[in-house]
Amino acid sequence: MSLSETLQALTAPLRARKGDLTRAAILDAALAIARREGLEGLTIGALADRMRMSKSGVFAHFGSREELQRAVLGHYAARFVDTVLRPAVRRPRGLPRLQALIDNWLKLLTEEIAQGCLMIGGASEYDDRPGSTRDALVGIIRGWTAEIVTAIRQAKDEGHLDPRLDERQLAFEIYGLMLVYHQNARLLHANDSVRRARAGLQRLLEAARAAPHAVPSVSRARRVAARGKSS
Amino acid sequence: MSLSETLQALTAPLRARKGDLTRAAILDAALAIARREGLEGLTIGALADRMRMSKSGVFAHFGSREELQRAVLGHYAARFVDTVLRPAVRRPRGLPRLQALIDNWLKLLTEEIAQGCLMIGGASEYDDRPGSTRDALVGIIRGWTAEIVTAIRQAKDEGHLDPRLDERQLAFEIYGLMLVYHQNARLLHANDSVRRARAGLQRLLEAARAAPHAVPSVSRARRVAARGKSS
Repeated sequence: MSLSETLQALTAPLRARKGDLTRAAILDAALAIARREGLEGLTIGALADRMRMSKSGVFAHFGSREELQRAVLGHYAARFVDTVLRPAVRRPRGLPRLQALIDNWLKLLTEEIAQGCLMIGGASEYDDRPGSTRDALVGIIRGWTAEIVTAIRQAKDEGHLDPRLDERQLAFEIYGLMLVYHQNARLLHANDSVRRARAGLQRLLEAARAAPHAVPSVSRARRVAARGKSS
Repeated sequence: MSLSETLQALTAPLRARKGDLTRAAILDAALAIARREGLEGLTIGALADRMRMSKSGVFAHFGSREELQRAVLGHYAARFVDTVLRPAVRRPRGLPRLQALIDNWLKLLTEEIAQGCLMIGGASEYDDRPGSTRDALVGIIRGWTAEIVTAIRQAKDEGHLDPRLDERQLAFEIYGLMLVYHQNARLLHANDSVRRARAGLQRLLEAARAAPHAVPSVSRARRVAARGKSS
């Protein structure tokens, strides 16, 4: 499932409910709590306190704590789509779009260093807690990975990247650089983190791009040789 | 500070206390709690329950909750040194030792996927909570990174890796692959995680090794040309 589909599944059943404006304000407050206290710290009570609402008022919007957590994840993912994915999709298919996806992602992560990324924090909180919150996190991370894999595949199709490139492997390595960037900047307060992340990402793309120029002639020669043998 | 020095600072003031055997058993139990509940879930009360001891009995070993958390981190780091660092240091300096460090680290992480890595989980729990537990986590991660950087530098000195290689950059990228491996295996239950981690690590080392053969002749030619111009 793509990130947009995952997102629709997360938010659609909730969208029908009343009070969209109040709901958006509540979700912003809930997101602020979840960033500071973790998703586990996001309770109906804490949210009611912050919004100066009654618990039953919050319950009118979210039937349970799990539903609240899922709604916040959906809210976060919707903002991620707006700031990272959508502007990138307006760029030409292929390497320009992939580069924009990566740049926008790194930019958002940099803005989030002070408060922490909800997905990275949540991933660590919920990796051993089965349930609907964990399922939502997994869905968003898988959906986002699928978007990166698609952008890489398109860059291959456009002839911008080596056609033999394993797109899931490249997506895996890009994700690794984002995770270590977040850890080094947020936990270690290492000043060189964003520079190192950029250098690593650039090197990955260079390597993915350079390969076809180096190798195709050899493989074409092999194909020709193979054809010569079989005929 | 190297990891061994960090470790000494963490465990030395505690080692002098009484009942080393009981202490080891208590630390094993505490480590099991911290793996399951996170370091935040590790309290004197939870540990006393598990050990069927009185709270004051646990307090006799650890004067405070923070001291207990630090002791568990030290206990974890000591095991890490025994299983990852020490066997690698017995390998020849240079690439063999660096490769052994990476292999042993990946192996330990693989064994820990079911229960979770205390450092990776702790990093996310404490990245925004100042205090002695966070300081201990930061010290261990910095110490471990310093060990990897040293191994890379030695591999350069031995002529096994490109002498112009930025050793901190390579250590950063290796760390990224370990983090994304942990997330993909533990949260996403992706079966290809360890294969992808290995492929990424291998590619990193290949690139670090291959560079000197590819580039020096060009840069030497440039140096010669530059010398020609200035004279």
